[in-house]
Amino acid sequence: MDFKKEFGPKIKMINDDLERRISEIENKNLRDAMMHYPKAGGKRLRPIFTMLVADAISKSGAKAMPFGVALEMAHNFTLIHDDIMDNDETRRGMKTTHIVFGMPAAILAGDALFAKAFEAVGEMDVDSESKNRLNSLLARAVLLVAEGQQMDMDFEKSESIKDEDYLKMIERKTAVLLSAAAQGGAIAAGAKQPLQETMFEFGRLMGLGFQIWDDVLDLRADEKVLGKPIGSDIRNGKKTLIIIYALEVLDSQKKDRLKQIIGKEGASKKEVDEAIAILDSAGAIDRAERIALEMISKAKKLLDDLPEGEDRQKLKDLTDFMIKREW
Amino acid sequence: MDFKKEFGPKIKMINDDLERRISEIENKNLRDAMMHYPKAGGKRLRPIFTMLVADAISKSGAKAMPFGVALEMAHNFTLIHDDIMDNDETRRGMKTTHIVFGMPAAILAGDALFAKAFEAVGEMDVDSESKNRLNSLLARAVLLVAEGQQMDMDFEKSESIKDEDYLKMIERKTAVLLSAAAQGGAIAAGAKQPLQETMFEFGRLMGLGFQIWDDVLDLRADEKVLGKPIGSDIRNGKKTLIIIYALEVLDSQKKDRLKQIIGKEGASKKEVDEAIAILDSAGAIDRAERIALEMISKAKKLLDDLPEGEDRQKLKDLTDFMIKREW
Repeated sequence: MDFKKEFGPKIKMINDDLERRISEIENKNLRDAMMHYPKAGGKRLRPIFTMLVADAISKSGAKAMPFGVALEMAHNFTLIHDDIMDNDETRRGMKTTHIVFGMPAAILAGDALFAKAFEAVGEMDVDSESKNRLNSLLARAVLLVAEGQQMDMDFEKSESIKDEDYLKMIERKTAVLLSAAAQGGAIAAGAKQPLQETMFEFGRLMGLGFQIWDDVLDLRADEKVLGKPIGSDIRNGKKTLIIIYALEVLDSQKKDRLKQIIGKEGASKKEVDEAIAILDSAGAIDRAERIALEMISKAKKLLDDLPEGEDRQKLKDLTDFMIKREW
Repeated sequence: MDFKKEFGPKIKMINDDLERRISEIENKNLRDAMMHYPKAGGKRLRPIFTMLVADAISKSGAKAMPFGVALEMAHNFTLIHDDIMDNDETRRGMKTTHIVFGMPAAILAGDALFAKAFEAVGEMDVDSESKNRLNSLLARAVLLVAEGQQMDMDFEKSESIKDEDYLKMIERKTAVLLSAAAQGGAIAAGAKQPLQETMFEFGRLMGLGFQIWDDVLDLRADEKVLGKPIGSDIRNGKKTLIIIYALEVLDSQKKDRLKQIIGKEGASKKEVDEAIAILDSAGAIDRAERIALEMISKAKKLLDDLPEGEDRQKLKDLTDFMIKREW
């Protein structure tokens, strides 16, 4: 699938709507800070999923689009605040919002994007009942993202993270906005409750698979494609499914050596390669890859509940695309 | 009016609902940070106004209450984030949220309170159409608060603030949540559109009057009642209506002397008294007092559009109470 060719027109619609909404903000400083990430572009996966699901159900992608844009604003809001919390100075090669505009304006820009997201839902052309469901879905999703971020921060100080803790954390921090994207498309399209719930589950499995795949890529991808050094999760001491599992099954000698390298910011390429070899000897990377593929495959099966057609096929193709190496 | 005696039962209802909602948060750190300000108590003016307006219209205060609680959560969310932006270490004698829980948890606690506010609206027992209006009102209000806070920060760096700039700023930063409280009560009570709008205007005038009165009190109140030294706005260099006007009308000698004292953190009591005398010589404090009283009086007149009765009288009494000295 050629992502740009396939989804270019949708991305244009989404970007126009997104920029129009932010441009309504009167205060220039606030508006510029809110626009900093959105104007840098992006794949707009959440709104695309919303539109495709709505199109597959009742050709109502355009009607559902503002909910996707609302999620995109919520996503950008969480990125801005996370970057402040994590003290990150760059994001995808670009200076973070609080570095460019200062911390106060960045906090406010996040808050205002969140408020704008609800405003977008309020202006949708759907019946009142659906609108209420979409509002509640958005509120619930952001609450879970906040809980996920807090869990992630708690994990940094904790020694005993288990598989299920990690899965719960990424389900909230990463998957929930994709679940909301798919479910929101179904709500806006007038789908019945069971199909709405199936779409939520589709987004959840796809989001989990995507995040675990991303953890695998961090250790196995081509650096040029990845856009950052291999093993940055190791240097940052990130407790991924791969590392959690390896620390459980390795013998004490390998475990101690792995622990010496994990979280060492200045670790050399040789040390990182050694850590990866240890993780491989535990089968931890293969295992994570298997889990990710299984989740993506289960997610795709759920799409069979949608009416057959071109849009459903596009959804399946896009789901496969989530775990490509050419990201 | 004995505030505690009059509104004690309402405050209890509001606090119970507020605490129940926050207690639903699963993560302990996040929950504790969200509860830090709410558990310190407060007058709960916004929810009380919501309930009184709804009671006056159709005895539906209890039904309207969750919207007031939503505004109280939104208010607390803005306090938490403002305290981070302003680098304030204490609020009403208590350590601020980011000082106790750290900046990352404080940012998240604000975000989660905002999301919880929308969740509360989603769970209200009102028709779908009203619920959508309440959601949009809440989103709009928080957007304006964010714009007001950004204006306030912009003002610190600006030399030429005019009366109308200041009024626009406090209308957004302070008045809009009171406008939303009164209008939200009317919406939940099933009032017609014109009365909803009148209630918004009531809240706006009352909020403006309240903030300007607060600026007057900072210079004229009894320190023991005020709970902080007289003239803290002078030491902080806050550009209130009083100072903006004085700088416009004073002769250049007095103006220069005033400018020397304004914003001087370590200004002595004698210097602050001198600044107050200069402001008085310009008639600036009396003028602000007059403006505040006029706004409160206009706000009260708008309440005559509500059905006559005990609840309307309570609203009038509470509006008078907003400009009492015994705060």
